[in-house]
Amino acid sequence: MVARALVFDVFGTLVDWRTGIAEAFGASGLPGDPEEFADDWRGRLVPILGEVNDGSRPWGDFDELHHATLDDLLTDRNTDLSARRRANLVAAWHRLDPWPDVREGLQRLRAKSVVATLSNGHIALLVDLARHGDLRFDCLFSAELAGAYKPDREIYLTPARLLRIQPAELLLVASHPWDLAAARRAGLRTALVDRPLEYGRGSEPRTDRAADESVGDLLELAERL
Amino acid sequence: MVARALVFDVFGTLVDWRTGIAEAFGASGLPGDPEEFADDWRGRLVPILGEVNDGSRPWGDFDELHHATLDDLLTDRNTDLSARRRANLVAAWHRLDPWPDVREGLQRLRAKSVVATLSNGHIALLVDLARHGDLRFDCLFSAELAGAYKPDREIYLTPARLLRIQPAELLLVASHPWDLAAARRAGLRTALVDRPLEYGRGSEPRTDRAADESVGDLLELAERL
Repeated sequence: MVARALVFDVFGTLVDWRTGIAEAFGASGLPGDPEEFADDWRGRLVPILGEVNDGSRPWGDFDELHHATLDDLLTDRNTDLSARRRANLVAAWHRLDPWPDVREGLQRLRAKSVVATLSNGHIALLVDLARHGDLRFDCLFSAELAGAYKPDREIYLTPARLLRIQPAELLLVASHPWDLAAARRAGLRTALVDRPLEYGRGSEPRTDRAADESVGDLLELAERL
Repeated sequence: MVARALVFDVFGTLVDWRTGIAEAFGASGLPGDPEEFADDWRGRLVPILGEVNDGSRPWGDFDELHHATLDDLLTDRNTDLSARRRANLVAAWHRLDPWPDVREGLQRLRAKSVVATLSNGHIALLVDLARHGDLRFDCLFSAELAGAYKPDREIYLTPARLLRIQPAELLLVASHPWDLAAARRAGLRTALVDRPLEYGRGSEPRTDRAADESVGDLLELAERL
């Protein structure tokens, strides 16, 4: 398969949000299971992104949306936390570690084609994560540049437009089948990278028979392409 | 001086457009002095960017504008060139070599703060140049994202907005005093890097007394910051 550019989903696909966020919950002083907190918080993201996409909520970046969903989570649990501790939790999304294969995998893939992010996270957040994990991209594409969140069609077309290539020359690499399916509807090629630890041990394995490639990590993807 | 992010002008400041473009003219088969052709072509850019900024010409990216100015140049000289050779000349702007200090200088500066482009060139062109010269940036900012060309105020504010920092926390590094002056009017800090070879041997040395820093190359800038 020939792809002129590879764009990568970030949260779950490249970085292990759950471990970092659970650690931040553990440090916050809240009682309860930090991993369960992390799952609950992350689970509130897709619904709020949908509210932005359907116009029922004004645009907010990931910091603003993480603040809003954290406030909701704490309210639902009748729990309070100081503004400073809430801010620390939101900031934890800026320093998440990549999965072990990612740094080397991106290097190998970059030797073959353009590599970039394609994330719902805003540019400032992606810059922080790339610097934290020493991840090298040729450029960063974000929902912020498209004015729409995944799975809106516009976000998938934005990298093709800015790189001056056709959607079919662009490969989205992601661990979430809903993301890949939306990318295919916009004309992109797709590769599933399974991340069996995204929701901890015992996560559901992901498969996507419609994907052009299905791999266990980025090193395997580099061998395939 | 503390800057949270450094943004770099590209053509002239980081890459030596004149040598690469003169070589391309030499290969085009046109009679005449290739360096003089290169200077003439480059000299037509600022006026056409002004036409875009003042609304008298619709938006065009650097490939489109380079095509238009090349057509004008050839018409003015009563010279013809095939469409393929014109396209080759326009494509030469995608593979210009960096000045000798740039790769290492960016690495050293990137250890201290975020480094990014801030160029009138479009994203696809900047990606090609960064890959060609093995230049590592944290992200790419372009007139294309601002919807305006330098020296329009909006282009200087765009990186600050996207990085979530104040304009005064952003340092523009450029070799052209008009670029630095416009950045200062938008509230940025500025550093002049003198490129005495931009227009060949005997170029006018540039000085800018209003700049926060004035250096001979990026290695010197890395020592200063």
